[in-house]
Amino acid sequence: MADRTVEQALEAADTQLGASLERLLSFVRIPSISTDSRHRGDCRRAAEWLAGELASLGLDSAVRDTPGHPMVVAHDPAGVAGPRVLFYGHYDVQPVDPLELWDHPPFEPRIVDAGDDKHITGRGASDDKGALLTFIEACRAWKSVHGHLPASISFLFEGEEESGSPSLVPFLEANRDELSRDVVFVCDTDMWDDQTPAITTLLRGHLFEEVTLEAADRDLHSGMFGNAVRNAVELLCDILGELRGPDGAIAIPGFYDGVQPLAPEIAALWKSIPFDEAGFLARVGASVPAGEAGRSVMEQLWARPSFDICGISGGYEGEGFKAVLPAKASAKVSFRLVPGQDPDRLRTLFRQFVTERLPADCRASFSSFGASRATAIAPDGPFIGPALETLTEEWGRQAALAGTGGSIPIVGHFKRILGMDSVMVGFARFDNRVHSPNEKYDLSSFHHGIRSWVRVLGRLDEMARSQAERRSSPTEAR
Amino acid sequence: MADRTVEQALEAADTQLGASLERLLSFVRIPSISTDSRHRGDCRRAAEWLAGELASLGLDSAVRDTPGHPMVVAHDPAGVAGPRVLFYGHYDVQPVDPLELWDHPPFEPRIVDAGDDKHITGRGASDDKGALLTFIEACRAWKSVHGHLPASISFLFEGEEESGSPSLVPFLEANRDELSRDVVFVCDTDMWDDQTPAITTLLRGHLFEEVTLEAADRDLHSGMFGNAVRNAVELLCDILGELRGPDGAIAIPGFYDGVQPLAPEIAALWKSIPFDEAGFLARVGASVPAGEAGRSVMEQLWARPSFDICGISGGYEGEGFKAVLPAKASAKVSFRLVPGQDPDRLRTLFRQFVTERLPADCRASFSSFGASRATAIAPDGPFIGPALETLTEEWGRQAALAGTGGSIPIVGHFKRILGMDSVMVGFARFDNRVHSPNEKYDLSSFHHGIRSWVRVLGRLDEMARSQAERRSSPTEAR
Repeated sequence: MADRTVEQALEAADTQLGASLERLLSFVRIPSISTDSRHRGDCRRAAEWLAGELASLGLDSAVRDTPGHPMVVAHDPAGVAGPRVLFYGHYDVQPVDPLELWDHPPFEPRIVDAGDDKHITGRGASDDKGALLTFIEACRAWKSVHGHLPASISFLFEGEEESGSPSLVPFLEANRDELSRDVVFVCDTDMWDDQTPAITTLLRGHLFEEVTLEAADRDLHSGMFGNAVRNAVELLCDILGELRGPDGAIAIPGFYDGVQPLAPEIAALWKSIPFDEAGFLARVGASVPAGEAGRSVMEQLWARPSFDICGISGGYEGEGFKAVLPAKASAKVSFRLVPGQDPDRLRTLFRQFVTERLPADCRASFSSFGASRATAIAPDGPFIGPALETLTEEWGRQAALAGTGGSIPIVGHFKRILGMDSVMVGFARFDNRVHSPNEKYDLSSFHHGIRSWVRVLGRLDEMARSQAERRSSPTEAR
Repeated sequence: MADRTVEQALEAADTQLGASLERLLSFVRIPSISTDSRHRGDCRRAAEWLAGELASLGLDSAVRDTPGHPMVVAHDPAGVAGPRVLFYGHYDVQPVDPLELWDHPPFEPRIVDAGDDKHITGRGASDDKGALLTFIEACRAWKSVHGHLPASISFLFEGEEESGSPSLVPFLEANRDELSRDVVFVCDTDMWDDQTPAITTLLRGHLFEEVTLEAADRDLHSGMFGNAVRNAVELLCDILGELRGPDGAIAIPGFYDGVQPLAPEIAALWKSIPFDEAGFLARVGASVPAGEAGRSVMEQLWARPSFDICGISGGYEGEGFKAVLPAKASAKVSFRLVPGQDPDRLRTLFRQFVTERLPADCRASFSSFGASRATAIAPDGPFIGPALETLTEEWGRQAALAGTGGSIPIVGHFKRILGMDSVMVGFARFDNRVHSPNEKYDLSSFHHGIRSWVRVLGRLDEMARSQAERRSSPTEAR
């Protein structure tokens, strides 16, 4: 039951929706692909664009250099009382290949209005530009009505989330006092289903590695040398093919050490909320779950570690045929981790698994593209409950507590370095094609997302007022 | 024992060597990569260049169109008596990637003169531009001294040898009478070792296939879907990883049906000629033979079928890391075959091997890039013996009868369509880096190659004279 303060801000958010959308389009037009050094200037442009938006809210905002892409940090100079909140998001986006599968250029976003299906398409429309703007636009609506933000709200945006966040930890460590708050809100996750909002409390960790194998000292003719000299691509296939056993489990010895079985309460909770496994698979063209035999899709995605080959390359990949015996091959692999697994230990185990299988004359080299532990957020902290209630109000159905298969390593960093729990609220749908061609964000996600955050701001306003009352009647508060 | 006729032509070949080399440099400068459609015009240019060279020898030469790259055909209008010989070569070359491994641009050939090591570098310097020119330059030397060629010699050059020769069979079939001769000389093979020339009588066949696997209907986020949805690259690695058993043998059921054990005479012959296995492997940076356990390198390369992955591709292969779960992956694979194996049957077996291993929701598609049966040439034909003798004379050591691991499918076509045996004489060394960066051809290969062919022309001249004598004394001949 929103009070008048909240209702006024919700009306403002509705009125300003068109302008909010225009800002999202401008933001998506900046091709801020962090992993590709050709887009370094675009990443800075995206940071500057965001800093400008925050300045237009009356905040002290700045683009702060790092050894990689810059951070954007903003604080409210008004120094409002009440809960101290940090909002986090990322302005960088994934690469766009294969480009030919996009229906239109990925950085020329469009609003598609086809009856019930209204959405904005473009790289980053959902992950994370659309998502992070829901919070900024909620602040804008609130401030346009009330003249100030309802609590002490600061902002932190990075530009390296899609490439392992190498600058984030040093930045948090160097600015510990400035950035430590009571809680951090993160908007980079999914809904439970298209109608049911969710707060994510279980996050898998990750370990991203690249392995390169070398055999002969140069590419050879497959007829002149085939059979007698080792083929690097074949060797790579052999070794990667052994990484998963016939039961679908990852075959690295010791990989599952420390992994806890799914707690019976969680298993029961997940069973009680209808999850359409067949529908989930059908959305991506599948009908039978892969992975570990005998485990549900939900358990596999949220509570079990996984292994994927994200890319492989070697030999002649062009048009036609080249009868070559490749001397070199490489693969990028991703492990997703659950609580109890140590990414540094698993990196060692993975590299051992490969090197132990190298025959004579062959060499392996490795590169790391980042790693993080899994995180489980306690669902009974002071902010999760109120956030769940406001989501339930806005969407008209019970909001869920969910897990996510994707890694959000910053959540671990915020806890470890700044001592803050994260409240992860997200409005992305399963079919947003995040990281894929034709990424989209539904207008209902954007609109209800902004309105959801307005309601959360209302709760922060209540908390601030109740703190102020307690301060003015100290005897009652004790 | 060369008579004066031969000695004069040898002297001419020596005198003209500088000009011969200049012609080779001009030829290598034409980037006639047949498998790459961007080089279609260059292939025609190479054909026209060759036709011009043949015309300069007084031959009727023509560039003849095919649905692919053109053929070059030339005949001697003088209509000399004697053995009727066809010479075959190919003017197309392999692709040049990885370009960054070349010491200089592959189509800007250079003559490197470093003491004992004199060679010409560039794509095609050896395979097959340098090799085929040894014969043309021998004819030029012979003709410059004697005014005409010593026998009825015709020429056939194709431009699709490196991409499966799709136009050759129809062309041979359509021009059967024009091209049928007593024998065909082919210059596209190796020496036995750096000092020992060889005639190749055993050739492996080939089967080139591309397989593409598809799983989900688009690339996905490895965190959001990893474990629960099939990864096309992982599936491809699993299946290709199963293609070879732990003993190094190819694991496709029925693959070795019809393969004969190495004949004891051949095994004894190969044992009698010193073959430096360790040196052979060391040249390419290896020390231990791969492939089938318990078989010599020579047997594996010449008398056993082989399997290679020539290229693999899937997912994100660019700079940095992309946490993608690839929906699609493909590989180009090469099988080398021995007598007794039917490529059409093996294609079916290979495709079955893959499709039988496809899990639910996954699809495989295949493309064929050509196939040929293996060939064994009878070593007691009328041309092999004289050719062996002339090679022995020129190089000063007993010439060998060898096999080759590479496929020369034209040899089978010449036998089947035109009824001709092939005499395969080659001057390439093992370290010519054929199909690899920094391909080279030794000046000694080029020079002794030309001189070897001059001696072969001398034998043809003798045969022509002896035929003429038999014709003028018919009673003696009977």
